[in-house]
Amino acid sequence: MSGPCVIGLDFGTSSARAIVARVADGAIIASATFDYPGGTAGVITSATDANLARQHPGDYLAAIDALLGEVACRAAASIDIGNIVGIGVDATASTPIPVDARLRPLALDAAFAGDPDALAHLWKDHTAHAEAGRITAELTASAPAHLARCGMTYSSEWFWSKILRVARTNRRVAQAAATWVEQSDYIPAVLAGLGDAAAMPRNVCAAGHKALYAADLGGYPPANVLERLHPDLAGVRESCAVPAVTSTTPIGTLAAPLAARSGLGPHVVIAAGGIDAHLGAIGSGVRAGSMVKIMGTSTCDILIAEAGSSPDIPGVCGVVDGSVVPGYLGIEAGQSAVGDLFDWFVRHVARVGPEAATIAQAHEQFSREAARLAPGASGLVALDWNNGNRCVLVDPLLSGVLIGQNLHTTAAEIYRALIEATAFGARTIIDRLAEQGTALDTIIVCGGIAEKNALAMQIYADAIGRPMHVAESSQACALGAAICAAVAAGAHPDMPAAIAAMTRPPSRVVVPDPAATRVYDELFAVYSALHDAFGRGQSAVDLRTAMKQLIAISRHARTAGMPG
Amino acid sequence: MSGPCVIGLDFGTSSARAIVARVADGAIIASATFDYPGGTAGVITSATDANLARQHPGDYLAAIDALLGEVACRAAASIDIGNIVGIGVDATASTPIPVDARLRPLALDAAFAGDPDALAHLWKDHTAHAEAGRITAELTASAPAHLARCGMTYSSEWFWSKILRVARTNRRVAQAAATWVEQSDYIPAVLAGLGDAAAMPRNVCAAGHKALYAADLGGYPPANVLERLHPDLAGVRESCAVPAVTSTTPIGTLAAPLAARSGLGPHVVIAAGGIDAHLGAIGSGVRAGSMVKIMGTSTCDILIAEAGSSPDIPGVCGVVDGSVVPGYLGIEAGQSAVGDLFDWFVRHVARVGPEAATIAQAHEQFSREAARLAPGASGLVALDWNNGNRCVLVDPLLSGVLIGQNLHTTAAEIYRALIEATAFGARTIIDRLAEQGTALDTIIVCGGIAEKNALAMQIYADAIGRPMHVAESSQACALGAAICAAVAAGAHPDMPAAIAAMTRPPSRVVVPDPAATRVYDELFAVYSALHDAFGRGQSAVDLRTAMKQLIAISRHARTAGMPG
Repeated sequence: MSGPCVIGLDFGTSSARAIVARVADGAIIASATFDYPGGTAGVITSATDANLARQHPGDYLAAIDALLGEVACRAAASIDIGNIVGIGVDATASTPIPVDARLRPLALDAAFAGDPDALAHLWKDHTAHAEAGRITAELTASAPAHLARCGMTYSSEWFWSKILRVARTNRRVAQAAATWVEQSDYIPAVLAGLGDAAAMPRNVCAAGHKALYAADLGGYPPANVLERLHPDLAGVRESCAVPAVTSTTPIGTLAAPLAARSGLGPHVVIAAGGIDAHLGAIGSGVRAGSMVKIMGTSTCDILIAEAGSSPDIPGVCGVVDGSVVPGYLGIEAGQSAVGDLFDWFVRHVARVGPEAATIAQAHEQFSREAARLAPGASGLVALDWNNGNRCVLVDPLLSGVLIGQNLHTTAAEIYRALIEATAFGARTIIDRLAEQGTALDTIIVCGGIAEKNALAMQIYADAIGRPMHVAESSQACALGAAICAAVAAGAHPDMPAAIAAMTRPPSRVVVPDPAATRVYDELFAVYSALHDAFGRGQSAVDLRTAMKQLIAISRHARTAGMPG
Repeated sequence: MSGPCVIGLDFGTSSARAIVARVADGAIIASATFDYPGGTAGVITSATDANLARQHPGDYLAAIDALLGEVACRAAASIDIGNIVGIGVDATASTPIPVDARLRPLALDAAFAGDPDALAHLWKDHTAHAEAGRITAELTASAPAHLARCGMTYSSEWFWSKILRVARTNRRVAQAAATWVEQSDYIPAVLAGLGDAAAMPRNVCAAGHKALYAADLGGYPPANVLERLHPDLAGVRESCAVPAVTSTTPIGTLAAPLAARSGLGPHVVIAAGGIDAHLGAIGSGVRAGSMVKIMGTSTCDILIAEAGSSPDIPGVCGVVDGSVVPGYLGIEAGQSAVGDLFDWFVRHVARVGPEAATIAQAHEQFSREAARLAPGASGLVALDWNNGNRCVLVDPLLSGVLIGQNLHTTAAEIYRALIEATAFGARTIIDRLAEQGTALDTIIVCGGIAEKNALAMQIYADAIGRPMHVAESSQACALGAAICAAVAAGAHPDMPAAIAAMTRPPSRVVVPDPAATRVYDELFAVYSALHDAFGRGQSAVDLRTAMKQLIAISRHARTAGMPG
């Protein structure tokens, strides 16, 4: 009755989710979630190094087991689970895991218990900032064509930086690792029961955006260049000899033990994985000319452009052929702290009062208070760099800024200023893409912030001066993974056909208020001055007038009255 | 048995205090406090203008009545109150009050009920910033010698700015005012029962530091200069025809109705008033070569220098002959938000959690947590400008800055950064005084922050790199007022003799930790870069390195371990 169905597995920062979606129309038949048991909200941190963020691969195995069983059981209430034909996976990136020759993570070996370098190096880990600098310098000199694909600056969040860091500082882990695999490759490999690191296919989405893989340039950066950075890197390159594949590529079928435990059949096709944001864009109906913003703890911006347009956009994280939709260039930009920034303020600065028993209630309370404020009235401007700047400065060693506070400034005003700061960060990226000639007619937003934070979406629309199209699915990433599975299993002929069938255009649009946009234009000028002064050190920026401008904007906003 | 005694009345921002002190040795026989009933913690503010801060003069009358009666009653338990020979007064400044010809504040007239301009314009009111700019411009052109006495920039906090503001914007109040009197003149006048605005003596402390009165330059700025700013100002100058007097000058005896109600005799001599900070310096034993820091909601720095030294120090608030100790130049500098800054953070940003039931408990909790942090470990630097910058930039249209925050930054780290910011502000003033050749061998601290905030005092010692001598008396201002009363009543021959008899040298010294000072030297370099970039717009300041320096300092501080 239901026809063929597919499973999408979405591995996020704090939890993993599964959906069963109908191939015919993308309808979601069942879903399940799993919170990682390790660390704090799934993330293992360090008291002495704020840059460290790791995860235990055992949490991924637990999630796979729990989610397959649970979502299959729930789906069985309305469909014959024998109709499930494929599983697709999205995961965070770059989250490389050191593994042995049989693809077993070192962290699962008792000999490496307690060594954080044996864990998965989570996307937001910035310990490798010095290594990122070395890689940028080396590639600028000897492989600029590769480096241009990631905006000419390699990030501390990415594959080679993290591996180089361990190569330089932890020989025991470095030598025990047969190779390093991205989380988005590891999980499909587990699902398919692969056990040979050397023969394992890597998805071009993660390989391209995080490891500088470019088929037209001969794959990864040249071996001699990696060798100069560290011999280990050349070894890892050699271990990745199999050409990278798109996320719609079948890599095998469900491993027998998992099939048995979940009740799913062993015929189920496993698709190569992809990065959560990129597959989220697919689940949100990405097309040429649209930007999909996946807004959660951080934000990833995904666009696709006709193959043949320039693949090099300075300050934008990555441009990779086929990383999103086969046949198109996939473009990734992003901001390293969005929901994380609001959450930081509520959890760590504005301690929750007795009237808000939970963090969620505190967010609601601040949002209510912040919604009553007129744009510009607080006189505050913040920079959204508490977790560094991913685009367009690509510099993890930046930090937050708040200016304009007086003795009456309230917590809700700061909360609003932080939301505005992330909107201005988004506007900076959009401006850069426009300068570089990327066509952009529609902004589609999805993810937790887009779904639940009406205040943030209005501020984004107002501060950017464009409508925000809120994607239908609250499970865009998992749906994108499911779409990849549908193509991999042959249930749709190609991805554009699968997207057309399985996604719906956004029905909700948040429209900018022109009066608010006029005020935000003024605040954005101050934001840009701070951005350039702290991020670029441009001596042409005179900050002497910044505070006076903010005071003038605030006076005008307060006397002009509150918004309707 | 007790010998002669004197009363010191201290009118602060939120409350007033009274002491009865023994003339022989300054021992405090009795004390009383009175919280102003008006506004919020005594201050009337505006929802639409963060610059507005007013007080109701009726609160002062209520305080006089309550405090005289209460302190006399308490003293009577141990002395014969007939031995009380004088009353001295200190008050905030510049806090001008519009009065009618009989010295009755307009605010007490029902016709002006609800008009904030008829109230006392509290020292920290910054509504007159535009007027301060006009006055600075006019005096730079036509009375530079006067302007040099206040560091070449006239403040929005001061007498003529506030009067000019009302002259320009509220003709009804401006025309009803026969003259404007400082709070420190009004209260002694009430005590002495004076009823003729034209004949009223003004204290040189407030007149000099806030209204540019300089006996050697012919008193107030020339009438034609004031006339050009506004005819009303020339009129106010004319109403202040009586030469200004030192705070040790007797201006009358206690008015009969007050004498009757309090039980004090009508023979009690009333001394001319003085500014709270300046009389606080007296009560703290000020001498040539010492700086007295009166640290409360704001900080005033008071020094005295041999007459004949240069009276002009750019960026320092005021240099006035005889304003503190007759025969010496009185030098005033200061910071417009200190305790207010810490209180802002606790009240408005870090909302008090259930574990801290009161604001005071929240301060204690943050202080405990902040004390456990090593200097530099947070990677934060703040500017202490939430209420503008009084010295050395003299610019009320500046605002707060916080930089260096990441996603792990805690409220206690910000709390500590704000304390450090005020210490760096203090260091900036000390550096300016040293550059200008002012001898400064000892820093004496007094006031609420000095008495109660051990963490702040250690941070000040470490960040400035000098010992902090904590003054004995927690009632330094009131004791200074009492010392003035003792001289006015003839119980001591002059102020140095009275200071020698009635004050004790500080017994507690907070010593800097050289290791902490080394870290603070690095943080101060970042503070100074921000100070110059936002305060002076110096294009030579490159802020691109600021965040990286803070991250490096933080890493080093965290790996070096916590302080013993």
